[in-house]
Amino acid sequence: MEELLAPFRQAVREQGDLVRELREKGAPEQEVSKAAAELKSRKKTLEAKELALQPKEDTVDRVKMEDTLKRRFFYDQAFAIYGGVSGLYDFGPVGCALKNNILQVWRQHFIQEEQILEIDCTMLTPEPVLKTSGHVDKFADYMVKDAKTGECYRADHLLKAHLKKLMCEEKCSVGQVNELEDVITQMDNYAQQELADLFVKYNVKSPATGNDLTPPVSFNLMFQTSIGPGGNMPGYLRPETAQGMFLNFKRLLEFNQGKLPFAAAQIGNSFRNEISPRSGLIRVREFTMAEIEHFVDPNEKVHPKFSNVADLEIMLFSSKAQTSGQSAQMMRLGDAVEQGVINNSVLGYFIGRIYLYLIKVGLSKDKVRFRQHMENEMAHYACDCWDAESKTSYGWIEIVGCADRSCYDLSCHSRATKVPLVAEKMLKEPKTVNVIQFEPNKSAIGMAYKKDAKLALEYLAVCDDCYISDQEKLLSEKGEFSFETDGKTFKLTKDMVSVKRFQKTLHVEEIIPNVIEPSFGIGRIMYSIYEHSFHIREGDEQRTYFSFPTIVAPYKCSILPLSQNQNFVPFIHQLAEAMTRNGVSYKVDDSSGSIGRRYARSDEIGVAFGITIDFDTVNKTPHTATLRDRDSMRQIRAEITELPDIIQHLASDTLKWAEVESKYPVFEGQESSKKE
Amino acid sequence: MEELLAPFRQAVREQGDLVRELREKGAPEQEVSKAAAELKSRKKTLEAKELALQPKEDTVDRVKMEDTLKRRFFYDQAFAIYGGVSGLYDFGPVGCALKNNILQVWRQHFIQEEQILEIDCTMLTPEPVLKTSGHVDKFADYMVKDAKTGECYRADHLLKAHLKKLMCEEKCSVGQVNELEDVITQMDNYAQQELADLFVKYNVKSPATGNDLTPPVSFNLMFQTSIGPGGNMPGYLRPETAQGMFLNFKRLLEFNQGKLPFAAAQIGNSFRNEISPRSGLIRVREFTMAEIEHFVDPNEKVHPKFSNVADLEIMLFSSKAQTSGQSAQMMRLGDAVEQGVINNSVLGYFIGRIYLYLIKVGLSKDKVRFRQHMENEMAHYACDCWDAESKTSYGWIEIVGCADRSCYDLSCHSRATKVPLVAEKMLKEPKTVNVIQFEPNKSAIGMAYKKDAKLALEYLAVCDDCYISDQEKLLSEKGEFSFETDGKTFKLTKDMVSVKRFQKTLHVEEIIPNVIEPSFGIGRIMYSIYEHSFHIREGDEQRTYFSFPTIVAPYKCSILPLSQNQNFVPFIHQLAEAMTRNGVSYKVDDSSGSIGRRYARSDEIGVAFGITIDFDTVNKTPHTATLRDRDSMRQIRAEITELPDIIQHLASDTLKWAEVESKYPVFEGQESSKKE
Repeated sequence: MEELLAPFRQAVREQGDLVRELREKGAPEQEVSKAAAELKSRKKTLEAKELALQPKEDTVDRVKMEDTLKRRFFYDQAFAIYGGVSGLYDFGPVGCALKNNILQVWRQHFIQEEQILEIDCTMLTPEPVLKTSGHVDKFADYMVKDAKTGECYRADHLLKAHLKKLMCEEKCSVGQVNELEDVITQMDNYAQQELADLFVKYNVKSPATGNDLTPPVSFNLMFQTSIGPGGNMPGYLRPETAQGMFLNFKRLLEFNQGKLPFAAAQIGNSFRNEISPRSGLIRVREFTMAEIEHFVDPNEKVHPKFSNVADLEIMLFSSKAQTSGQSAQMMRLGDAVEQGVINNSVLGYFIGRIYLYLIKVGLSKDKVRFRQHMENEMAHYACDCWDAESKTSYGWIEIVGCADRSCYDLSCHSRATKVPLVAEKMLKEPKTVNVIQFEPNKSAIGMAYKKDAKLALEYLAVCDDCYISDQEKLLSEKGEFSFETDGKTFKLTKDMVSVKRFQKTLHVEEIIPNVIEPSFGIGRIMYSIYEHSFHIREGDEQRTYFSFPTIVAPYKCSILPLSQNQNFVPFIHQLAEAMTRNGVSYKVDDSSGSIGRRYARSDEIGVAFGITIDFDTVNKTPHTATLRDRDSMRQIRAEITELPDIIQHLASDTLKWAEVESKYPVFEGQESSKKE
Repeated sequence: MEELLAPFRQAVREQGDLVRELREKGAPEQEVSKAAAELKSRKKTLEAKELALQPKEDTVDRVKMEDTLKRRFFYDQAFAIYGGVSGLYDFGPVGCALKNNILQVWRQHFIQEEQILEIDCTMLTPEPVLKTSGHVDKFADYMVKDAKTGECYRADHLLKAHLKKLMCEEKCSVGQVNELEDVITQMDNYAQQELADLFVKYNVKSPATGNDLTPPVSFNLMFQTSIGPGGNMPGYLRPETAQGMFLNFKRLLEFNQGKLPFAAAQIGNSFRNEISPRSGLIRVREFTMAEIEHFVDPNEKVHPKFSNVADLEIMLFSSKAQTSGQSAQMMRLGDAVEQGVINNSVLGYFIGRIYLYLIKVGLSKDKVRFRQHMENEMAHYACDCWDAESKTSYGWIEIVGCADRSCYDLSCHSRATKVPLVAEKMLKEPKTVNVIQFEPNKSAIGMAYKKDAKLALEYLAVCDDCYISDQEKLLSEKGEFSFETDGKTFKLTKDMVSVKRFQKTLHVEEIIPNVIEPSFGIGRIMYSIYEHSFHIREGDEQRTYFSFPTIVAPYKCSILPLSQNQNFVPFIHQLAEAMTRNGVSYKVDDSSGSIGRRYARSDEIGVAFGITIDFDTVNKTPHTATLRDRDSMRQIRAEITELPDIIQHLASDTLKWAEVESKYPVFEGQESSKKE
């Protein structure tokens, strides 16, 4: 296999070297980004090859799995009786229970164990907040429309599909194929006009009708609405939950008695008005996220509990490995931080905790990796970023992002609102620090901006060090810099503002915390669990089951009377009441199917265990029933009064099935011997 | 007190008699509704008097309470650093934990104990769904605008405030006062033009500026948006979660193996674009609901578990009591159903279960009542409706609605989508039934509607019995009836359609289930819990606490080292780890305040118990610590290894504080004797 992959690895390595070289010699930005795009494309090809070469038994039968998910109403298209809406799904009883359990484990694993402050903010968000965060201007895709029907398409998807079709045509020469491949490679880099030109050049038409297309326009992916009746407060449905935590920073800091570090978290829905959603649960218009914002003193980016996770062996796909054509490799987390592969131990700690969470809820160890963003993928403010990825039939998909966002978000909101979002640190002894400040020439600014001058002065007063240094550079290079605040644009020249540096003795230090942000896509995690736990019984293609870990299984236990005989009823009630008392979810199936058929139905939705009430239950004392393990299909027999506690312990993972088997007599009869 | 109330009761009774009399003699609709509005107004006056006469100690110090809620960040205005948005609130760590616990208990109490099918549907909803449900046309308030500033006001609120001001003016004669009172009484009954005339007649101006107002217009209270990029799929944020359950009826029925009855439930956010929100958490623009739809065969409206709740004594405020000036009265639930006060035992069962839930999460027994809707309050399709109300400083407020909505919702969606939303019942023996059907004259309809005729025929084929009877009446009275389907309006005359009645022998019966709908406003329940559990320590106005029941308390336990001495640290970790293992939420407060001060801070946010680590913990073996009960402030001393289990049992309500006190030595020292 490695032999087959070698040329592809080589191609990546060469291109990676080229990008590095271009960067080092300070080549023009455009040249670098073209090379980087080619690198990305070669990486994709390599990855596609790797996936294609994997052993067959590693791939899930998606059609069969999705049939089960739909038929047993794990989830299904929303508003189906009204024709459905693409990208919107409803979760049925099984999917909803699984989702609740995943979130409950998340709360236990993060909120509770890490003592995180969970908050719950509104989804409706007024425009200025999302203007500051950049979503109003930048959260967009290019779109083209069928000029007659109005049908919309994502410009890049459509162009790519069209070019691929052209490449397959017989008349397409080798030279042309290379040209088209080049365009596809650069797809993510084109600006609006370039895209428009390409649509004309390659004569792209509407795929459904052959009609002309309108030129590409930028389409913002947020759902817009209007808050209040006046029509003068535009708002959006939040595209992420993070902003609510930044905006409440001061309150949270106070709640934590002014001390850093601390973390906030939020679980809730976010929205993204996809142009043409596809890939089922992977890309939807309304989805549940769970996000953490860990606020930390930038000078103290060391996690006290890192040693708890340092010995974990995790599959890491570093930026360096990616640009040199290597594959992801298993690495001890402690080594990764020590060797600087992972920027700091706070980030490292969260990577470890995320990994443990994913395994706990049912992802396969060998289908989870952490991939580092390459330099050109990362937002300019982030200093390191790792995505947890899961291997699915769609390839490796991002399921959790984990970014060190430095002080970017708090600084932005601080500048926009003029509310200082800082923490104070008492110094043990006074210290002398270098201060950098804007020194405005008030009269010059006053002359230029009259009554708006005050806004500019307020703005200049709350800027952070990095921002001031950046503007200072502009002042010296171009003689001016611009900014926008409260909807007004200001252009300040050298005679209006200078930058002053001086030393000051501090007793209390003001800190803009850095933010480490683990951000979980719950729908994608759920989908990955489905794929990683879907199995077909050996020798019976028709019998499928989900091997969900007991703690997230939608129901912990089935209660199955052997038949509809009335003598079984009191025992059903006795078990049901005891399970309710124990807080263990269960599902009674007293329908008329054979016990084997009902076990199959129970397995199909991933119920962890099954209790069967049979004639021995009724006729013998002490009353006993059988308990069956879904994955192994093995059974034991125990007293009916003991069973609810056994299940409770199995469900909370304080008892393993092997222990149960060693303690109680194995049972082998029922499925075949229907005694009735 | 009863003496003071007697004349008000008399006034209600007289008006109640009048309304009944008018109805019986078939008086014109307008006359009846005027009298009913007057009845409603008199009821309000009586209730205001009752509340004013209640003992002082029953009223909460709302200012003090809200100060605590804000200061300790239970909740606060959203987007405050951007100036805030009215009607939108963020929940901080304490409020969020309380809310999660309330919902967790709800799941345990309803989903788990009643084996309800929980689902999770999207909030984004396409327009046709809400057109069918009536929200597009009827979910609206009248609004007026300041002609210059554009400031918006709810027309009825503004008019009422204006008239009340006029009434207080000296020049206002007795006759005029009566006239104005009359207008206020009728406020809910005015149509758009009548309201417009009243604004002119009484010369109402903008309260903030004195500017002219625009005439009242209807303002739909749903947040509108557009789904997808085409701009051709208008959608709304759902105003309730119920529709998702109706639309998934067929899937849920199948999940339940085709059997009735069963219930579905959903927890999630809903939205209401209030014109001018006020009353804090009581009236907000985004809120969490928990709704149940219990689908039941209309011929079998008997709940098998009703006997479990029949002996509950609940404060019921029947329609009859309301129209005859009586107050709510304690009644045995079994008697209420038997005497027909409550329509059926399914409704009765849910009332009992709702009551038990409310008490479990912390509402005061004497501040909860169930009020029946009077005939004119009820939607025309509902056959009985009871609101759980909670007594707060805002008066009695609705917190849970519990309605028998008959087959209304399923029928509507069935007609609109032509998908039959019915259950099938196998009959033990074949039965002969009366069938009522539309008998369309296909050629006449074809002549009149050409290619749209098919739509009309499909529509006529899925109508239910009640609807057909109603239209039959119209046909015979007016010779025609109209309906709208797929955006087209049809007017059918006698020659196009008739109604046919005949008998048929059935082996399987098709049933449109009736729906019983308990609908919980989680924010309002939470607010009621705040008011009902807020206390001030006797003799210390500054020390307040919330006596939340342990199962919903935001944190179960505080861990308080007596000082910042490093010897306490290992014990903090030992306790914290054990509590995490037990799934018990806790909060460490190792700040420098005195232990008394920190107990006060802990009580202020309603932490249920507190463990203090003192020098005896460190110096003596076995290591012990003290455990303090928030409400009684009493303490015991126990071994540190035992404490986490004690708290776990207290938290799950399987152990009472009194038992703890009887088992462990009472401790009395600490707060005063700071040994350090």
